[in-house]
Amino acid sequence: MKALLTDLYELTMGDAYLRSGADGWSAFEMSVRPNRYRNFLVAMGTLEAARELANLTFTDEEIDYLRSLGKFSEDFLEYLRNFRFDGDIYVVPDGRILFAREPVMVVETSRIKGQIVETMLLNRVAYQMNSASKAARIYHAARGRMLLEFGARRAADSEAAVRIARATYVVGWAGTSNLEAGRLYGIPVYGTMAHAFVQSYRTEFEAFLEFAKAYPESAIFLVDTYDTLAGIEVAIEVINHLKDRLKLKGIRIDSGDLVELSRYARRRLKEAGLEDVIIVLSGDLNEWKIREIVERGEADAFGVGSEVAIPPDKPVLGAIYKLVEDETGFKHKLSKGKVVIGGSKRVYRYYDGQGKLLKDVVAHRNERYDGEPLLVQVVRGGEYVYTEDSLEAARERFLRDFSSLPEEYYDLDNGVEPPLEFSPSLRLK
Amino acid sequence: MKALLTDLYELTMGDAYLRSGADGWSAFEMSVRPNRYRNFLVAMGTLEAARELANLTFTDEEIDYLRSLGKFSEDFLEYLRNFRFDGDIYVVPDGRILFAREPVMVVETSRIKGQIVETMLLNRVAYQMNSASKAARIYHAARGRMLLEFGARRAADSEAAVRIARATYVVGWAGTSNLEAGRLYGIPVYGTMAHAFVQSYRTEFEAFLEFAKAYPESAIFLVDTYDTLAGIEVAIEVINHLKDRLKLKGIRIDSGDLVELSRYARRRLKEAGLEDVIIVLSGDLNEWKIREIVERGEADAFGVGSEVAIPPDKPVLGAIYKLVEDETGFKHKLSKGKVVIGGSKRVYRYYDGQGKLLKDVVAHRNERYDGEPLLVQVVRGGEYVYTEDSLEAARERFLRDFSSLPEEYYDLDNGVEPPLEFSPSLRLK
Repeated sequence: MKALLTDLYELTMGDAYLRSGADGWSAFEMSVRPNRYRNFLVAMGTLEAARELANLTFTDEEIDYLRSLGKFSEDFLEYLRNFRFDGDIYVVPDGRILFAREPVMVVETSRIKGQIVETMLLNRVAYQMNSASKAARIYHAARGRMLLEFGARRAADSEAAVRIARATYVVGWAGTSNLEAGRLYGIPVYGTMAHAFVQSYRTEFEAFLEFAKAYPESAIFLVDTYDTLAGIEVAIEVINHLKDRLKLKGIRIDSGDLVELSRYARRRLKEAGLEDVIIVLSGDLNEWKIREIVERGEADAFGVGSEVAIPPDKPVLGAIYKLVEDETGFKHKLSKGKVVIGGSKRVYRYYDGQGKLLKDVVAHRNERYDGEPLLVQVVRGGEYVYTEDSLEAARERFLRDFSSLPEEYYDLDNGVEPPLEFSPSLRLK
Repeated sequence: MKALLTDLYELTMGDAYLRSGADGWSAFEMSVRPNRYRNFLVAMGTLEAARELANLTFTDEEIDYLRSLGKFSEDFLEYLRNFRFDGDIYVVPDGRILFAREPVMVVETSRIKGQIVETMLLNRVAYQMNSASKAARIYHAARGRMLLEFGARRAADSEAAVRIARATYVVGWAGTSNLEAGRLYGIPVYGTMAHAFVQSYRTEFEAFLEFAKAYPESAIFLVDTYDTLAGIEVAIEVINHLKDRLKLKGIRIDSGDLVELSRYARRRLKEAGLEDVIIVLSGDLNEWKIREIVERGEADAFGVGSEVAIPPDKPVLGAIYKLVEDETGFKHKLSKGKVVIGGSKRVYRYYDGQGKLLKDVVAHRNERYDGEPLLVQVVRGGEYVYTEDSLEAARERFLRDFSSLPEEYYDLDNGVEPPLEFSPSLRLK
């Protein structure tokens, strides 16, 4: 992470803290504001953010740039030159389910260090959590059908493209089209063909045939370039032509009324005796459209891009990072509509006899509860100490938490109150 | 740019083209689908994309990963190992205003080379154009008031954060809070203070005083941490207390009814004889809210973050990249609701006697028109040849184009037909 991926004011405040001697112990908390379409959230990017913070330094070049602004004292520039994060970080690890208003990350350190990392921590975590939380709703709607992440072209840039591939895989998706994500994380990669491919041959038949000859192990034909109904017939023809030589066979429909077209396609494939040809659907799909197709249409797999790259129903997650405690006590924030309860917090989760989530108790750091700790200490005295940091571990955490959710949290349309209980010491008087 | 920032299907199609001998000359076009809230678009990221493509190579490690997938022929892997883009690229350069359905980028090269770069070009350009086009609407709404980009924490990651700072500066904004963008591009950096700063001192008075002592040259006080009306009084008190020692003096309001609060603040400042104290407003601002404040409230500067990081009214720009021509002729695409007119295109712009934009003529590459060419050749035979690639040049292009727009294009609420005229050879028969 670049140390200057931050807002100027973080550093001017830092300098003012230094000059006025206000650099005592402080606790900062990241949390997410309630949103009607997110009955639950999925933590994502918290481990990466903590790792990066533990390794953060300012280069000479960065210090020189800061000096050139003429805004900083030499004492503060010297402070940054020696910067090394030496505090404690508690996070909800990637893949775990949590709720709005709960802390997703707690940073306990000196005031300057906690303050100046605000922007970079929010930048790292908020986007990834937003995509993951949206993708988890889609995972629910797909009811076990394969989900493929196709969002690279819609993501803000290369880093974001890789992160959404990773985030969707953690929340149970089958794989991604993104090769860089496949290379970096070993996520299974999938793909079909584009309209340009079909247009690159004289006929649709020739295009499908050439593709199938090149890719007999995974021949999925995009049938909607010219006329979808006719395209389905051409796919059937090519599959019959090459029958024994093809392994995975499928058609993809990317436009039109996907419910009706997929029903029609399944009927035609059955009539042609092609029970093993899969149907892949794509084209601006989200959890609501997928639910409808699962209920009324036919699909073996869904390709989803835009809606996880940037969820249109919640383009920006309302993540905040606030001072919640220092040596003088709790720091409540009471701005209109933006209340933050003070106190550096921990969260303890409780389950019922069937393993279903019962409630989360949000308590002060000095209180002890016997529930399962949701916030885990991942940085201790500046050192990253977490050991369950693999992609597969995150996916397991998600699948376990997801199956522990009571039914009402899966509701795609109706909001549910988060099952939070604040300990008496954290209630506003 | 990472060569594997692409979808698997781009490369499997590439391999199939190679095996079937379908690698002839081809033209691909990037354009944007119409959208009701974007009467015009601002090109952004096109030069970066072209530069990166001219330098694109596949590393051995990347080739090894591709081989490990067991999906590619050795011939194709060898092709990628020797990959060097040697075609031609025409773009609408950063800062220029264009319209939906016009080409923003044309890639003329062999079919494989044009195909496999689709994902990375869309990834680079679409997000930046979306932010820039939104930011240009906000620039219009602000009617000359200062605009500050505060979106780093809301952006998808560090690259995106820097790119929105750059994009907003190109479209006339005054500066950014993002230090990395300041360092990389020399964009002016601005900042105030956060609520945590105010909470870090026993009283608001003490917080403002300490900040002003540290930053007498730019003392802007955030007045809404506890009670905005009271905060304004405290700011007045501190400003009066330090009067002569402060250079730039201001207050920032980040919540509540900004119209009413800003009017109240201006009145109180005037009553206190503080005519030179600026009012900075922030908090989920967009073009509509800013227009209202300009009309009915009081503001010298606006800080805007979320809405340019990811515009909620258009979270994902509908950018597409399509095969439009090859050796066999034009490639139209007629999928329902997704029509693309074939032919590799150029655009010529015409102005009226007052310098106002009259129309864009979209013509075939072999046609000649005497209008101002909008698409510029930036890569010739694989070599990047564009010379007007500075940030300031882009800003000048924007300001010139923006002032050439007829009044109706500035309308924030009502859609206007793009002033496009397709040459007869490009009309669908």
